[in-house]
Amino acid sequence: MDLVVGIDIGGTKTKIGFVDQKGKCHEKLFFRTQEFEKFDEFLDKIKESIDELKARFEFPVNIIGCGIGAPNASSRTGTIENAANLKWKGSVPLLEKMKLRLNVPMRVMNDASAAALGEMLFGNAKGMTNFIVLTLGTGLGAGIVANGKLIKGYDGFAGELGHVGMTLGDGRLTGLGVRGGLEAYVSATGLKRTVLYMLSKYMDPSRFRDIAYSDLHGEDITKAAEEGDPIALKAFDYTANILGLAMANFTAFSQPEAFFLLGGLVNSGKWIIEPSKKYFEEYLLEVYKGKVKILTSGMEGKTAAICGAAALIWEEQ
Amino acid sequence: MDLVVGIDIGGTKTKIGFVDQKGKCHEKLFFRTQEFEKFDEFLDKIKESIDELKARFEFPVNIIGCGIGAPNASSRTGTIENAANLKWKGSVPLLEKMKLRLNVPMRVMNDASAAALGEMLFGNAKGMTNFIVLTLGTGLGAGIVANGKLIKGYDGFAGELGHVGMTLGDGRLTGLGVRGGLEAYVSATGLKRTVLYMLSKYMDPSRFRDIAYSDLHGEDITKAAEEGDPIALKAFDYTANILGLAMANFTAFSQPEAFFLLGGLVNSGKWIIEPSKKYFEEYLLEVYKGKVKILTSGMEGKTAAICGAAALIWEEQ
Repeated sequence: MDLVVGIDIGGTKTKIGFVDQKGKCHEKLFFRTQEFEKFDEFLDKIKESIDELKARFEFPVNIIGCGIGAPNASSRTGTIENAANLKWKGSVPLLEKMKLRLNVPMRVMNDASAAALGEMLFGNAKGMTNFIVLTLGTGLGAGIVANGKLIKGYDGFAGELGHVGMTLGDGRLTGLGVRGGLEAYVSATGLKRTVLYMLSKYMDPSRFRDIAYSDLHGEDITKAAEEGDPIALKAFDYTANILGLAMANFTAFSQPEAFFLLGGLVNSGKWIIEPSKKYFEEYLLEVYKGKVKILTSGMEGKTAAICGAAALIWEEQ
Repeated sequence: MDLVVGIDIGGTKTKIGFVDQKGKCHEKLFFRTQEFEKFDEFLDKIKESIDELKARFEFPVNIIGCGIGAPNASSRTGTIENAANLKWKGSVPLLEKMKLRLNVPMRVMNDASAAALGEMLFGNAKGMTNFIVLTLGTGLGAGIVANGKLIKGYDGFAGELGHVGMTLGDGRLTGLGVRGGLEAYVSATGLKRTVLYMLSKYMDPSRFRDIAYSDLHGEDITKAAEEGDPIALKAFDYTANILGLAMANFTAFSQPEAFFLLGGLVNSGKWIIEPSKKYFEEYLLEVYKGKVKILTSGMEGKTAAICGAAALIWEEQ
C-alpha cells in the first residue's frame, strides 16, 4: 500500500503517522518535542519512530514521500527560522538533515499552512478557494488560502499571524519580541498569561491563587470554567474577545469564506470558540457580516496535523 | 487608436483619463466628487467628461473598454457598499447604472486593487508576484497581490485594510465604526485628527492653534513640518510609527516583496514615508528584516489611479 509519512513538529508534542491517499491515518505515535536538547538527536528519534511504525503493518508498505509541518518553517528553504516555541534557535536545516535519514521525496512547510492544505484535500475546506486555518496551540500559527492557493509569500514565511501586533505601543511580548503580538494572548500560553493578568486585576476568589504559573495547564482552566471559577471565566472571555477582533482584522485582509480553528485550545470550544463568534460578528465590517463561517477541522482531531503534513506530498500525486 | 477609459472615484476627487496599452494617459480631467448629492447626477457628469475628453483628440479614438476604481467597490457585484468616504450610502449599483451611459466592456474594482493591477501592468511591480499597494488618501485602501494574483476574497471585498483594528478595545473610530481602525490614523484625515490629538496632548506653540479642523489641509501640515512646527513634526512621527507597525503586521500575513505607497499623503514623503521605513524595520519579525522594500508608484503621479483603473481592461486584452 502506498503511504505518506506525515510529521507534525509542535512546540509541545511531535506527532508521526502513516497516511493514505484518502487522508486516513493508519498508524501513529507521539513524543515530547522538548526532551531533545540537540536537533540531531530529535531527528534520530523521528527516524526510529518511522521504522517502528512501519514494522507495525501486517501488509507491505511503500513510503512514497514524507511531509513535515513545523512552526516557522519555510517551504522554500526547508529550514526552521527563529522558532519562538522550539528549543533549537537560529536557522535549523530541517530538510537537509532529514534527507540524510530518509531517502524519499520530502517537503517541509509551516505547520499551519500544512494544516490548511490538509483541510483542503481531506477535510472541511474541500471546494473552498478562500479560507484561513488558525492553529491555537503552544503558539498561534496560520495557513492562508486565497484564489485556491496557499499564500507562501516572497520567501516562504507568510502566515505568521501569531506575531501581528494588536496594540499601539503597549501590550505583552511574544517569544519573538513582538509587542502586543496575537499569540501572547490567543494560544494555550496566552490563556495562562491571561489567568495571571486576571488574578492581578481582580480580587475574586479562584483556585488559581494556589497554583504557580509553571504548574498551570490549559485543561485546568477549562475545568475551572466549567465549575464557574470567575477568574477562568474572565480569562476565556478576554481571550475570545481578542480572537474575535483578530479574525475580523484578517477578514479585512483576504475576506475568507471560513476560518478553521485547530489545536489544543479548541478543546475548550464552549468557552473560547463559541464566545469568539459573537465578538467576531460584532467587530466585522458591515460588508462582511453574516458571510464568514467559523469552523473546526474536518480531519480526525488527534491526527489532523499529521494528515496536514502528509497532504504536502499527496497534493502532488 | 485603441484606448481605455480609466475612472478613479476618490473621496475627494474623481479622475478620468484615456489610457493606451502602454499605460500612458493621453487626456485627463478631474472634478470634485463631493459636489454631487445624487449618484445619477455624478454619473451624468462622468459621461459628459468622457465625451469632452474624446472630443479633444485630433485622431480617431476607439474606446475598447472602461475600468472604474472606487472605494469599497466589489468586482463581483459591481456595487459600492457602505463607503466611509463617499456621500452615497448603502449599496450603490455603479456598474449597472454606468452601463446605461456607456456601451463598452466595463469592469469595476476597489480603487486600491485597481492601483495594484496598474502597478503590475504598467508600473514598478512588473514581474513581482507578491506585493501590497496602500493608497493613503482621504481614507486608506489596499490592493494585495499574492502568488501573482490579486486577492479578491470570497465576495470581492478583500483588502479593506483601512478598517483593521490596531488597538485592543480603545482608539479612534473610522467612518465605518471600527474602533482603532488604521485609516483613522494613517490617511490625510487621520493626519489631521493627529494634529488635534497632539494639540490636546502637548502645550507647544503651533500655527495650528489658530486653525479650525475644517480649515486644515494636508499640505499645510507638510509646510508646517518644513518650518519646524513641533506639533506638525509630532503628528508626522506618530503617523509614520503606526504606518510602520501596520506594514509589519501585513508582512506577517502575506510576506510581500514590496509595499507601494500611493495617494496624497505620499506628497509628504520626507515626513511620513522615510520615517515609516525606520519604524517598519524595527517592528518586523527577524525573519523578514531587510527583505521587504517600501516603494512609490512607477506610474506618473497624478494619473496613477486612472492608469490603475484602465488596467482592469488592458490586463484582459
